[in-house]
Amino acid sequence: MSLLQRLSFNQMTADPWSLEQVVRNCSRSGVPYIGAWRHKLNGDASKASAMIRSEGLRVSSLCRGGWFSAPTVEERRKRVADNRLAIEEAALLGAPVLVIVSGPANGQTLSDARAAVLDGLLEVLPDAEKAGVILGIEPLHPMYAAERSVVVTLKQASDLVERLSSPAAGVLVDAFHVWWDPEVMQQIERACGRIAGFHVSDWPVPLPGILMGRAMMGDGVIELRKLRQAVDATGYDGPIEVEIFNEEIWKNADDGLLELIKQRLVEHV
Amino acid sequence: MSLLQRLSFNQMTADPWSLEQVVRNCSRSGVPYIGAWRHKLNGDASKASAMIRSEGLRVSSLCRGGWFSAPTVEERRKRVADNRLAIEEAALLGAPVLVIVSGPANGQTLSDARAAVLDGLLEVLPDAEKAGVILGIEPLHPMYAAERSVVVTLKQASDLVERLSSPAAGVLVDAFHVWWDPEVMQQIERACGRIAGFHVSDWPVPLPGILMGRAMMGDGVIELRKLRQAVDATGYDGPIEVEIFNEEIWKNADDGLLELIKQRLVEHV
Repeated sequence: MSLLQRLSFNQMTADPWSLEQVVRNCSRSGVPYIGAWRHKLNGDASKASAMIRSEGLRVSSLCRGGWFSAPTVEERRKRVADNRLAIEEAALLGAPVLVIVSGPANGQTLSDARAAVLDGLLEVLPDAEKAGVILGIEPLHPMYAAERSVVVTLKQASDLVERLSSPAAGVLVDAFHVWWDPEVMQQIERACGRIAGFHVSDWPVPLPGILMGRAMMGDGVIELRKLRQAVDATGYDGPIEVEIFNEEIWKNADDGLLELIKQRLVEHV
Repeated sequence: MSLLQRLSFNQMTADPWSLEQVVRNCSRSGVPYIGAWRHKLNGDASKASAMIRSEGLRVSSLCRGGWFSAPTVEERRKRVADNRLAIEEAALLGAPVLVIVSGPANGQTLSDARAAVLDGLLEVLPDAEKAGVILGIEPLHPMYAAERSVVVTLKQASDLVERLSSPAAGVLVDAFHVWWDPEVMQQIERACGRIAGFHVSDWPVPLPGILMGRAMMGDGVIELRKLRQAVDATGYDGPIEVEIFNEEIWKNADDGLLELIKQRLVEHV
């Protein structure tokens, strides 16, 4: 299968586009997959699903569940319920994967927060199994450890998947989050058979910001092809999702964006 | 020994202060150590050393050597020469440790750049041994992997130290750089006997910037006491260096700064 047949356009790469625009533009450009975000489904996953399918497109993943560490029991209960809802929405969309961003420590110690992530996953795992949705545990770059994810390495994510020991648990490899890791190649190899998704963007130098600093593939220093080949070597042949948070790209998102992405995917990934 | 007897004030915590001011203020506040930077020695390490000693102060470390990966052979030669000079300067200052920041990949692949770091260290190690200066390999936070240091974990630093296998090679533990690491406690324990220094600051939420985002101890989420106790448990009883890059602190650096640092050290470290 060619890279272009595996291309998924993550909605957040063009935040100003409505779901309708994303669907129309992807369809017109021959992009087969969409990476969906819950807050961009207009509150109706069934309707969103129908719209996406009507153009022959598929959803590669839904972002996001997780965020398990909570300051109170009540808040914790709400989060578990929200994860169950997210699993349902993923199933409605036909998304094989719900992306799990574990959340910050939220006042707990790091080790307690990490234990809470495992507990939360164990709690919702039966729902995922029933729905046929894989919980794709995504380690985030360590610069997000305090605000978004206490899971920061592929090793940690794979350790969690081993503890969950279910076909409904996998790891999500995002190049931006893992490229720096001295163990990334071994850990990709270790994740053989449980890679649930592969995301690409690039790390520009200098990095313009913490949250909005990602760049188009080829405009940074990540060895994207090496990572993609390592992921493929495990047997993964699923979607390659382009997820870039970059205000310049948002501002200038027009018909040329998807063509540029296709070109950069072929050249750099 | 009390924490205050181990306190070192890194010059960059108050960038606007001249060396003279740092020496005078530390002396007045009873801060026994200074963490020195090469570019802040007024180009004369001997004179700087005399000034520091005249007030009864000692230098805990000199920052920095390293930065080994170079685009050309000539540039590489210059960097090795500069590291030799840095070792000499550390010896002149009576600094037991030269902080090694390994540098970015600089156009090389990550694995080549990491090999170049080991080669560079091997090249200058005999000079360090002769001078009685420890090369303190400091892993930087992975958010600096592209611009400042391809060495990003304590594990990597300890692996390097094992390869160097010399009393003149050690690791430098900076809480800001390593707190997020799921293996930080094991790796501190593993580094027993080769910890060459311990630096503290804090990680505020949200992090205001990549380079200038550090906070005063107690104003962030790092479990500083836990890390300090782990470092001490290895037998390390050397200086605790306060190194904060924060523009607000720079702007407001006055007589109160050292008193605040002493208070926060006792309360949080």
